[in-house]
Amino acid sequence: MRSRPFLLILLSHIILSTALVAQTQGSEPYDSLARQIVKEALGSNKAYEMLSDLCTNVGHRLSGSPAAAKAVQWAEKKMQELGFDNVHLEPVMVPHWVRGPFERAYVFDPSGKRENLAITALGGTIGTPKGGITAEVLEVKSFEELHKLGEKAKGKIVFFSRPMDRTLVNTFEAYGRAVDQRGAGAVEAAKVGGVAALVRSMTTRRDNVPHTGAMHYDDSVEKVPAAAVSIIGAERLSALLASGKPVRVHMEFSAQTLPDVESANVMGELRGTEKPEEVIVIGGHLDSWDKGQGANDDGAGCVQSIEALRLLKTLGLKPKRTIRAVMFMNEENGLRGGIAYAEKKRPGEKAVAAIESDMGSFQPVGFGIGDSAAYEKLLPWAPVFRFFNADHFQLGGGGADISPLAQQRVPLMDLIPEVQRYFDYHHSDNDTIEGVNERELALGAAALAIFSYIIAQEGL
Amino acid sequence: MRSRPFLLILLSHIILSTALVAQTQGSEPYDSLARQIVKEALGSNKAYEMLSDLCTNVGHRLSGSPAAAKAVQWAEKKMQELGFDNVHLEPVMVPHWVRGPFERAYVFDPSGKRENLAITALGGTIGTPKGGITAEVLEVKSFEELHKLGEKAKGKIVFFSRPMDRTLVNTFEAYGRAVDQRGAGAVEAAKVGGVAALVRSMTTRRDNVPHTGAMHYDDSVEKVPAAAVSIIGAERLSALLASGKPVRVHMEFSAQTLPDVESANVMGELRGTEKPEEVIVIGGHLDSWDKGQGANDDGAGCVQSIEALRLLKTLGLKPKRTIRAVMFMNEENGLRGGIAYAEKKRPGEKAVAAIESDMGSFQPVGFGIGDSAAYEKLLPWAPVFRFFNADHFQLGGGGADISPLAQQRVPLMDLIPEVQRYFDYHHSDNDTIEGVNERELALGAAALAIFSYIIAQEGL
Repeated sequence: MRSRPFLLILLSHIILSTALVAQTQGSEPYDSLARQIVKEALGSNKAYEMLSDLCTNVGHRLSGSPAAAKAVQWAEKKMQELGFDNVHLEPVMVPHWVRGPFERAYVFDPSGKRENLAITALGGTIGTPKGGITAEVLEVKSFEELHKLGEKAKGKIVFFSRPMDRTLVNTFEAYGRAVDQRGAGAVEAAKVGGVAALVRSMTTRRDNVPHTGAMHYDDSVEKVPAAAVSIIGAERLSALLASGKPVRVHMEFSAQTLPDVESANVMGELRGTEKPEEVIVIGGHLDSWDKGQGANDDGAGCVQSIEALRLLKTLGLKPKRTIRAVMFMNEENGLRGGIAYAEKKRPGEKAVAAIESDMGSFQPVGFGIGDSAAYEKLLPWAPVFRFFNADHFQLGGGGADISPLAQQRVPLMDLIPEVQRYFDYHHSDNDTIEGVNERELALGAAALAIFSYIIAQEGL
Repeated sequence: MRSRPFLLILLSHIILSTALVAQTQGSEPYDSLARQIVKEALGSNKAYEMLSDLCTNVGHRLSGSPAAAKAVQWAEKKMQELGFDNVHLEPVMVPHWVRGPFERAYVFDPSGKRENLAITALGGTIGTPKGGITAEVLEVKSFEELHKLGEKAKGKIVFFSRPMDRTLVNTFEAYGRAVDQRGAGAVEAAKVGGVAALVRSMTTRRDNVPHTGAMHYDDSVEKVPAAAVSIIGAERLSALLASGKPVRVHMEFSAQTLPDVESANVMGELRGTEKPEEVIVIGGHLDSWDKGQGANDDGAGCVQSIEALRLLKTLGLKPKRTIRAVMFMNEENGLRGGIAYAEKKRPGEKAVAAIESDMGSFQPVGFGIGDSAAYEKLLPWAPVFRFFNADHFQLGGGGADISPLAQQRVPLMDLIPEVQRYFDYHHSDNDTIEGVNERELALGAAALAIFSYIIAQEGL
């Protein structure tokens, strides 16, 4: 009897595999190509090797930093080594915000006892005055609540504590509904006389790691410093405030914005054999926040774009139209690379589609297609992606870096992976290579290769 | 310009969400129920709380161990507290294999230099003689190769080094094609005079953690001890052997099989309101290997089964047919619980379907249905699961614990999650709560609740 479980399990999985094969017939000529591409992606593991190299030898790479400059060289060299066509840089001036040497915070409970609070300055914030800010905390869940409280906010550190809604399946939607606190918290706090903004981290993971991200100022409103606090820190603050007694926080950091720096978008391509002037852009962003290693955001999208071209080249697949991998600079705090790419004149060239990968390294589930004609045209090919569970094509898609191309009516698309884990890592020290599964990353690269190749062959 | 990326990203995701809603219309009455169930699962996070409790307070729980007995009590108490109907144990005698107090191994390179080798005894193996076994190593990739070498294996430790095929999308298929080495390696080694079997771990992760699992003996062949070696250890061994010079390994462990122990399957149900005698079984296995915490294999399946009932009960959904959650005992090394469940006479009761969750806690992608009539009947409901990417229904499915029910022609089914990460954890110290994402686990529980409820209402 001992071997019976093996046989039964094995049998059921052979049936499964057969069923999978049966369900994906009928989309020739791309079915067999797709299987070759997936096999090469999983077998070679090149995407993971590249990402590991980028994470380990470059690390995080905020726009304007020496590491971002190193990342530009890294990407150019990688594509040159792989023998892509037309590998080059397109210069762009980028913001240069620096966190400074330290950041710290304490909370004083109503009895005056001091506890550490895990915070991190938000990207773009000014620093605190020398010696920091110490003030009473006012907790609010929304700007509406803050403005109702009005005068009560004066002289306070305004603590924005509305969590991402965990009941939503789409974590990006939950992010979208909470991130106003991070982006505009400092402005709204200052409007009512607050001295600083402290924002509950945008994450779905309950740990003590704060998550940074962009914030902005309004020139007509006084600038006050802004930071994110970890979930555990935010919950502790809320618990202390629940007593109704005054709770004070001290926070201190020396962030500042320096003059703009020259950086670059990095690109390489497989030149089309029949209509080289028609270009499909695939890409991610090369910059990251100055946290972790920028592995999922967005090292993954960069190496998947490079790997997609490598897969096609290695398998001898020559696209009819040009497929160009673009590593955009400065998605996180300015979008200067995306804007520069779209604004640059490219005489005789026609952009057919732009496809972004910037939702992490996770198992691909399909593609978002932000143009209904393109969606109708591409939907019949979805079954090609079924054998590795990436056949969910959706109307609606795009990405920050490629969004400026919308003005030229370029159909915008994106690789959509599973999204449950993304915000565990996003903009934090959690975002290291440890959060990347090599097989899932490879499947994403394969999906991007197959999808862009189909567009290159079929047109839109 | 600073806030422009936010707005664009946000906009694209609102479009995405709208598209998702649009695509899942038309499967009433279950669409809105499914959304309620998913919302409750994600919002309450109960599955993760239960799994965390099981992992932390019970830990790993091999059949016959005190921890397995504690797990039985844990599961019974949990279902009683939740107010399920007919919560009870069904006793079953299970094997009692114990690893013993230590296990260690060294490799001696051709110069005699000693290095540690990360090994673990395979489940069911005999121990080594006191003081261990030291012998030269013979590496083979298959039983065929071993038997061709014949005499050369005499007195050697046979090292089975064929890896799981990483190019296969389905990791369970890759497992199925490699696991003969683990199951039958000791028998095949002994047939040609080998003194022990050492098997490359069945895993997709390159680390130094060995993965255990079941092996078996053949009464007509001498019993020799068998162990698994980590991937890094296996690669080191292969590299040393590549020199062509003799490489010796020492291995030592005191594993043994003790007399059978009484244990139990644990079950509870939501009694059907209209046809209570018709039963849908949902379940996983309560036992685990004596490694890690048995989180993905198969604590996840157990808590998902309990949580599926809790979700229905909490939302006031009363199934027409009975849905029974069964925590099977002894899947890993005997299947005694699954066999006992199937063999037990249940007068007046009719099993409608049996659904297993034993492929980990990962994002659900759909269901395997091992019966073509049931598949045809259930396929039209697949779109209900689309909004959380769990709509891939496949013909072919089942699971080890429920497999003995095949003799009674019960349609067998299983919850299918993403499979890329499972073997990173499987049967090893990696299989802890750290490898579980709470949102993915919750979505799996929700999928199981919706699927079993539809069967309970519609029949098969």
